[in-house]
Amino acid sequence: MQTASMQNVKGTSDYISGEQRLRRQIRNLLEQQFYCFGYEEAETSALSELEWLTSKYGGGEEITKEIYRLSDQRGRALGLRYDLTMPLARLLTLHPGLRLPYRRFEMGKVFRNGPTKRGRLREFWQCDADVVGVAGPEAELELFQLAIQSFAKLDIPVIIRWNNRSLLAEVLMALGIPESLLSSVMLTLDKLAKISRADVAAELSSKGLNTSATTRLMELIDRAPQQLTLTALAATYALDDQPGYEEAQTLQQLLTSLEMDNVCVFDLFLSRGLSFYTGTVYEIFDATGQYTSSLGSGGRYDGMIGKLSDRSELELPAVGLSFGLESVMELYRQQPQAQAVLRNPVQIDVAVIPIGDTLVEAVRTSGLLRNAGITTITDTSGRKLGKLLNSLYTRGIRFVILIGEDEVRAEQVNLRDLAEGVEIAVSVEEALHRLTQICL
Amino acid sequence: MQTASMQNVKGTSDYISGEQRLRRQIRNLLEQQFYCFGYEEAETSALSELEWLTSKYGGGEEITKEIYRLSDQRGRALGLRYDLTMPLARLLTLHPGLRLPYRRFEMGKVFRNGPTKRGRLREFWQCDADVVGVAGPEAELELFQLAIQSFAKLDIPVIIRWNNRSLLAEVLMALGIPESLLSSVMLTLDKLAKISRADVAAELSSKGLNTSATTRLMELIDRAPQQLTLTALAATYALDDQPGYEEAQTLQQLLTSLEMDNVCVFDLFLSRGLSFYTGTVYEIFDATGQYTSSLGSGGRYDGMIGKLSDRSELELPAVGLSFGLESVMELYRQQPQAQAVLRNPVQIDVAVIPIGDTLVEAVRTSGLLRNAGITTITDTSGRKLGKLLNSLYTRGIRFVILIGEDEVRAEQVNLRDLAEGVEIAVSVEEALHRLTQICL
Repeated sequence: MQTASMQNVKGTSDYISGEQRLRRQIRNLLEQQFYCFGYEEAETSALSELEWLTSKYGGGEEITKEIYRLSDQRGRALGLRYDLTMPLARLLTLHPGLRLPYRRFEMGKVFRNGPTKRGRLREFWQCDADVVGVAGPEAELELFQLAIQSFAKLDIPVIIRWNNRSLLAEVLMALGIPESLLSSVMLTLDKLAKISRADVAAELSSKGLNTSATTRLMELIDRAPQQLTLTALAATYALDDQPGYEEAQTLQQLLTSLEMDNVCVFDLFLSRGLSFYTGTVYEIFDATGQYTSSLGSGGRYDGMIGKLSDRSELELPAVGLSFGLESVMELYRQQPQAQAVLRNPVQIDVAVIPIGDTLVEAVRTSGLLRNAGITTITDTSGRKLGKLLNSLYTRGIRFVILIGEDEVRAEQVNLRDLAEGVEIAVSVEEALHRLTQICL
Repeated sequence: MQTASMQNVKGTSDYISGEQRLRRQIRNLLEQQFYCFGYEEAETSALSELEWLTSKYGGGEEITKEIYRLSDQRGRALGLRYDLTMPLARLLTLHPGLRLPYRRFEMGKVFRNGPTKRGRLREFWQCDADVVGVAGPEAELELFQLAIQSFAKLDIPVIIRWNNRSLLAEVLMALGIPESLLSSVMLTLDKLAKISRADVAAELSSKGLNTSATTRLMELIDRAPQQLTLTALAATYALDDQPGYEEAQTLQQLLTSLEMDNVCVFDLFLSRGLSFYTGTVYEIFDATGQYTSSLGSGGRYDGMIGKLSDRSELELPAVGLSFGLESVMELYRQQPQAQAVLRNPVQIDVAVIPIGDTLVEAVRTSGLLRNAGITTITDTSGRKLGKLLNSLYTRGIRFVILIGEDEVRAEQVNLRDLAEGVEIAVSVEEALHRLTQICL
């Protein structure tokens, strides 16, 4: 009888066999792309000072509620990291000598004590690439390229929806929304794809937005797409000399010149929940629209590092991109090549089987093969030979080495090729030689 | 000014640059060995039900004190895993259909809210290989081989000290130590290398061991090595038909036959702190003796999985081996090849530099190169060209592509080899072709 404590904690999972091989394959592929773009790996601790994690310059109230809190032996207040951006900010504060631009990636677990649902876990992987020290839009372009190349390698067609928080603020202020409500209104707008239009309106009112501003905002939301392009917005709200608009417009022009604008699409209502974003924000979606969860996201958070470290003179522009391993996995698993990984067992080249009192020779032979790099198991199950060979072959193991007591006396082993059904008696050295040529 | 909260939590670290590359190299090397021995990867959650972690069939009182405790939104009591064996036990309970023997490895962070000192952290990596379902000593031999091969690849000479907890219990009982005190006395014996002889004696008395048993035990401790061999012990304490002795003797004979006994050395006083070990236990040390912390350890924990799952009919013999990444790292970093990794920057093949208004072409060219697998950065720093090229070359970047406005008009780029000091004007395709041949 299993007790409740034996289950996985709600919102967490263990991964084994093909499932884990597939997760690993995705991580390896992303890692290759990170390296290819010149990013170097960092690894930060999961335990953090709670005071740091809950700083007002961090991810904001919504995420702070979801921090797992704990304390050490001395009663010091700690928390588990909820993303990889806050640890990066700490790292930059503690290593002021790092050469800029600093391109780093980190892949690791983050923890959120929030509601769980399909695709939303309490302990999950993030795979992040950030470039620190580049103020210009080339940083955004680089991360867009990184996302596009990564998903191309994964055979997942994507669309990157992007916006600019400064621009969004300029539009909202043009609608008469007071500055004090901007962040809060953006949080509501970020839910447009998830909750109904009526719920958005209700939430806006409940946040203290007056009726006329709410009405104007709902009118904007209801506009046709061609009225929501950058050019149309600039014309409607006279944004031409506003810095957020100019930033967005520059990026849009670069994307067009680079013919990336079919994948990277401007979306005025995207805003992202985390409060530290200052400029460009983006979110990556399945281009077919079948899978609605975000596959990754990111944005620019200029100034955050300086503020967090009480050194606002530290002008550290930064842009990040985070892949969500869980949702990428859900889409990737549908690919034929992924199905093969899920189905096939782990690759083993050779099984060495002692027959009779030959354990020493079997263990020694396995050791020799492995030392040469051949994946080898010793099978001491004692199962009937015919059944055992069948079972090994079914698991994809092509070669077995059988060692009986006669073979030990003759200083030989029987090398059998289960695919060809042939067996030869050879010296261990000869078997090693042949297997090295075939398996490596 | 840095505030305290900006520091790393005591007993935790962040890793960057060469340090992280070296850690990753060790992990990759261990991973290769795990695969080569036919182990497949599992990944378990760090969050666990506290009830499970603190089970009396788990790691015991000493380790239970060091569990980080926390709770979820609903107030459910959770803990952070302190090793990778308890999660493996849960995994086997939840996946009763796994084919045995199950060889799995896991590499991941574990957490211990204990005292910190050099080489003893509160958040650290373990790299574990376990084989479940093999009752015979071939499982121990396999893990010893795995340890030996791994440290050989790391160029670290090691000695594996091993013992058998049943045998140790038999010896202690022969000395008149009551069964109820066995575990507690073993815990003290495990400290022999760390605390003084007098402190051991005092701790034994304080645990309620009477004077005559303490005296007999101290006499045993003081014996010459040749009196502490398995054969000598069997003669002194008439252990010949005792199961623990027989197990140890069988393993010793196999190790001798396999000529592994020069590395795998019997040590009667090794006992390991975790209470779930039932048979063989072992610990791996630097063979030169210069580094005294353990590099890894493991042991047999037959029956634990069944007891933890309330299904003691589940006869699941199991043996594990755990590498301590932190101490392996401390030793490995002294190797010349490690020094090179620490010193050298991350490998970047090409830097693309826009000169004038050519950002679009530079970004496009970088994208083309990366898409072909060439590690490329775009440098938009705007630094003086001479200084910039010097700095790039110092970082190990051999090739740069310079794109000025004239080049854009001529549909060419300047490809410069910083090592040879030569530059040619070629089409982007030609540059890609040449770099592919040199860099890949």
